[in-house]
Amino acid sequence: TSNESRERLGQLELSTSRHFIQMSAVYSTHFQFLFCILTLHQREALHDFAHFKTILLYLSPWVHLTLLSSSADIWPYPHEGEDPYSMEGIPEDLNYELQIKDGIIHVYENAEALKQEQAYRLPYPDLETFAIDLSHVLAMIADGPTKSYCHRRLNFLGSKFYLHEMLNEMAELKELKCVPHRDFYNVRKVDTHIHAAACMNQKHLLRFIQTTYQTEADRVVLEKGNKKLTLKEVFDNLHMDPYDLTVDSLDVHAGRQTFHRFDKFNSKYNPVGASELREIYLKTDNYIKGEYFACLIKEVAAELEESKYQLAEPRLSIYGRSASEWESLATWFIQHKVHSPNMRWMIQVPRIYDIFKSKKLIPSFAKILENVFRPLFEATINPQKHKAVHVFLKYVTGFDSVDDESKHSDHMFSYKSPKPEEWTTDDNPPYTYYLFYMYANIMVLNNLRKQRGLNTFLFRPHCGEAGSITHLVSAFLTADNISHGLNLKKSPVLQYLYYLAQVPIAMSPLSNNSLFLEYSKNPLREFLHKGLCVSLSTDDPMQFHYTKEALMEEYAIAAQLWKLSTCDLCEIARNSVLQSGLSHEEKKHFIGANYLQDGPKGNDIRRTNVAQIRMAYRYETLCNELSFLMDAVKTEFGQSSAQ
Amino acid sequence: TSNESRERLGQLELSTSRHFIQMSAVYSTHFQFLFCILTLHQREALHDFAHFKTILLYLSPWVHLTLLSSSADIWPYPHEGEDPYSMEGIPEDLNYELQIKDGIIHVYENAEALKQEQAYRLPYPDLETFAIDLSHVLAMIADGPTKSYCHRRLNFLGSKFYLHEMLNEMAELKELKCVPHRDFYNVRKVDTHIHAAACMNQKHLLRFIQTTYQTEADRVVLEKGNKKLTLKEVFDNLHMDPYDLTVDSLDVHAGRQTFHRFDKFNSKYNPVGASELREIYLKTDNYIKGEYFACLIKEVAAELEESKYQLAEPRLSIYGRSASEWESLATWFIQHKVHSPNMRWMIQVPRIYDIFKSKKLIPSFAKILENVFRPLFEATINPQKHKAVHVFLKYVTGFDSVDDESKHSDHMFSYKSPKPEEWTTDDNPPYTYYLFYMYANIMVLNNLRKQRGLNTFLFRPHCGEAGSITHLVSAFLTADNISHGLNLKKSPVLQYLYYLAQVPIAMSPLSNNSLFLEYSKNPLREFLHKGLCVSLSTDDPMQFHYTKEALMEEYAIAAQLWKLSTCDLCEIARNSVLQSGLSHEEKKHFIGANYLQDGPKGNDIRRTNVAQIRMAYRYETLCNELSFLMDAVKTEFGQSSAQ
Repeated sequence: TSNESRERLGQLELSTSRHFIQMSAVYSTHFQFLFCILTLHQREALHDFAHFKTILLYLSPWVHLTLLSSSADIWPYPHEGEDPYSMEGIPEDLNYELQIKDGIIHVYENAEALKQEQAYRLPYPDLETFAIDLSHVLAMIADGPTKSYCHRRLNFLGSKFYLHEMLNEMAELKELKCVPHRDFYNVRKVDTHIHAAACMNQKHLLRFIQTTYQTEADRVVLEKGNKKLTLKEVFDNLHMDPYDLTVDSLDVHAGRQTFHRFDKFNSKYNPVGASELREIYLKTDNYIKGEYFACLIKEVAAELEESKYQLAEPRLSIYGRSASEWESLATWFIQHKVHSPNMRWMIQVPRIYDIFKSKKLIPSFAKILENVFRPLFEATINPQKHKAVHVFLKYVTGFDSVDDESKHSDHMFSYKSPKPEEWTTDDNPPYTYYLFYMYANIMVLNNLRKQRGLNTFLFRPHCGEAGSITHLVSAFLTADNISHGLNLKKSPVLQYLYYLAQVPIAMSPLSNNSLFLEYSKNPLREFLHKGLCVSLSTDDPMQFHYTKEALMEEYAIAAQLWKLSTCDLCEIARNSVLQSGLSHEEKKHFIGANYLQDGPKGNDIRRTNVAQIRMAYRYETLCNELSFLMDAVKTEFGQSSAQ
Repeated sequence: TSNESRERLGQLELSTSRHFIQMSAVYSTHFQFLFCILTLHQREALHDFAHFKTILLYLSPWVHLTLLSSSADIWPYPHEGEDPYSMEGIPEDLNYELQIKDGIIHVYENAEALKQEQAYRLPYPDLETFAIDLSHVLAMIADGPTKSYCHRRLNFLGSKFYLHEMLNEMAELKELKCVPHRDFYNVRKVDTHIHAAACMNQKHLLRFIQTTYQTEADRVVLEKGNKKLTLKEVFDNLHMDPYDLTVDSLDVHAGRQTFHRFDKFNSKYNPVGASELREIYLKTDNYIKGEYFACLIKEVAAELEESKYQLAEPRLSIYGRSASEWESLATWFIQHKVHSPNMRWMIQVPRIYDIFKSKKLIPSFAKILENVFRPLFEATINPQKHKAVHVFLKYVTGFDSVDDESKHSDHMFSYKSPKPEEWTTDDNPPYTYYLFYMYANIMVLNNLRKQRGLNTFLFRPHCGEAGSITHLVSAFLTADNISHGLNLKKSPVLQYLYYLAQVPIAMSPLSNNSLFLEYSKNPLREFLHKGLCVSLSTDDPMQFHYTKEALMEEYAIAAQLWKLSTCDLCEIARNSVLQSGLSHEEKKHFIGANYLQDGPKGNDIRRTNVAQIRMAYRYETLCNELSFLMDAVKTEFGQSSAQ
């Protein structure tokens, strides 16, 4: 009877889902809906992601399956005992040439090819297609009946999970009780979104500052103008005795004052409100060559290693202000031996063209892109010449795009937008503009690196924390996964698309609670229940957390407040591993050898502690949603053919 | 103008507050309201509590001030280097005689006095007075106009704090920033309500069980019937390998299943649902003489000592089933050297007469009272004969009364209720009955001990977690402070009385969240804002908490969810020290030498990190409320005299 009623419901929904498909079909001779799911531009990244295969299976009659190449790691993580900073066996120079053109780095096989403008074929999405795709999805999310359809499907998913919970909660728990040796405490959890400059908690930073003052007060740590200052002089100038310093006077913690005030929040990065201390303790490129910052991070890494089951993906900044930033960052990384088996690195590029431009540090937006990406191409083409960057890049797994999303942009992105070389006004380009050009360059770079057998990068921007809903559309078309995603609350169509495509979302409810959205209103629980692929992350332990274990604090509060079950918590933890930039080998070790397979088959309960009942529920539910759409597609397709 | 408007408001309120007083006056020739505040029976305990003096100051024309004796510690905590278990210098035998009469232990100077029934004069409240007082307060909290008055005053207190916050938040913060070396992390926090048998977190217990199995699998740990079982045999019988044990299979954590199910919650004390494991690991009186339990507690104590700033007041059980329980508990305590400078002990007496009676273990309720209290009197009269109990009692600071408050009782307490010796039915006596007899015996005992120069005990029952509102009335008349107090939400009159008398409340919102009240509905924040004296406590880390630092988890979640300021948090921490059973010397050290004084004068901001602005606000606000009532009393008094 359950099957029967499901079928009946299916027939009811069919007519509406057909509209959904028709609506998508308006924009193209192909089915735009398939497009929405499948022309996620950076398809190759999705290979690692299990559900993608299911989606392809359903949609296979309409798409080429050539995308499904092997997902084995190109550059596996160095094994036990190997020197992570080894400069041996570095590939040879390819002698390729480079040129930036319309904001995208082009590669040429030699000087001749460069002269003739015959670029080496490395696919990337062209701007026009992207702009059209973007407008298609934008129109789709504004369409009334499509909204109704998605809204109803999402409600259905929520209610269905509620039923699942009532029926199977005890059975899931029973399954978990039978799993030997594995519980919530020893499943792997990755902090999928954390900024390196705020990865320690406030008390940790305070103690570190006090310790340095006790041991090295007379060390020169800062150059101001032409004057070299010792630590003692710095604190004397600030009229402070570090011994008297407290977390109150340190003042790096977010509070009621930061709610809806991203500007105030940003200034919390300055301990005691003094940019000197930020410079000394939280920067990689300063007078002491980032030594203190490296120490702090290594202390955090040591705690993670001790915990064994917790990992983190801290973000380090590349600003694009100068071409030497990469060399400098890589040297810092290697010199201070910052690598840890429990950390993988992300590069965050702040969207602050306007600041650099107003200070006349750069001529155009293209210069930022060139400063960010050209060194990567150079290190890929001739690693021998850029050994430090080459080695550092092994531990870099992706890119993030960061800044206050609530800032309004006057410019409306379109294919007519000025090219990056022409973007010379003082205004900041809009979010979508940043995303497209970062994404296009990453794609070219990835294709080049793949050919060389080097590791590639994911694109994991901050998105949907605040601001316009178009951010989430741009990210849907470009990102491997996103951080925050709060605004999916506001668009049922986008939320449903993120569900269908299983785009992972790293959520940070405690961060949101201090900045944009009260904890009780955070959609994480609702997203999790509906089946969106969500993980928990800390964002900035320095600003938001109280205890020594920020990630556990995040899980504990979510568990307490939303009364999450152990299975819920372990599902979130599993999602965090899936979403992370960890290698294929590590993922196999952490969540099971078959993790790339869908449904219960892909789940090793002895490693994940996620009940098979839960996995089966998620799998069946997704298949059910996809089959609705496919039924509609078939009908539609039949009709179209008949016409 | 602020003063003017306050005066105008004052005049408006005067008429209503007069009703409040008149209402109280109905029941007695004295002002019953004063009675409510001042005939808190255990007055002497309140000496340690600062606000009491303020209250007395306002009410002094109507009360005798003889109560205000010195509050110096009678038995100060042993100093650095002293042996806490020393059996030297123990006082001599007084050769007094004892007899239980109407449920209360009476002391006689010699056999002759006993024969003639001439009890030694040790004041205690007689049942009839208590019963009348109880009915007075019960009538008062049901009176309509009184309810309106209190409701309005409480609303006023809430709104006034909101204004205070808006006006002074930044000023408070500034004050705190200027305090050298003191912040939220290094102010003293006492976990004012925690059960010893659940004071470790679930992971800790799990690891401990695994360690014992690894090291002592062949040790005999249990006697079942006539059979002695080794640890290995115990686990074999349970068909379990401790190595495979997880927190899931351990199953001691509360979850959705325990909400409104105190019975299910109680069974969570049995690891893996097996009472054998509770017996082996969480009991003081078992085959291994409570060794494992002592080890666990000492590990928790070691963590507290390492944290330095956290202290706890764990509850150990005395059931009243047999007279030997005290001797056994004291021996356990001394033998395993359980004392820690960061722990002070409370004795919890479960309200489970009905269970013992149904098993025919005891003849009447009086037997429970005798088993609980007689050994204490004996150890007080002749410490030489009861050295272990005598030494242990140094570290016992009070009594708790525990059980599921939501259980309904058929019996209605009154002065006609059967005397404890006559209470021989299978029914459990009601909450109030338990409280009165515990309280009366503690009072006699305290008076006796005070005369001998020995330390005395506080009465700090669980109250208002669930069940009838009368519990809170009984506790208001008898308790020094209470745990939970949630039901004050339901009675504005009682809530206002608890505010005026500044009766401290140890709240445990995470415990409530799993048992009786969702976190978002917990009144802690509201109580704190209005000025009730609330502290934060964990109740049962094993069942409710996720992280290693349960008390910090409790503070962190409250801070995050309710966006508490540092000043709020430090005020709660200060309240926890005030409320605790710590010695006068320790309190002076932890919160300032003048802590017994009211208002800002009593606050040492360098120790408490509570802003003086906040202290002044609390003090003025309380004085304001009291002066309203006093104005009304004066008018009323004048009128009465005139009549």
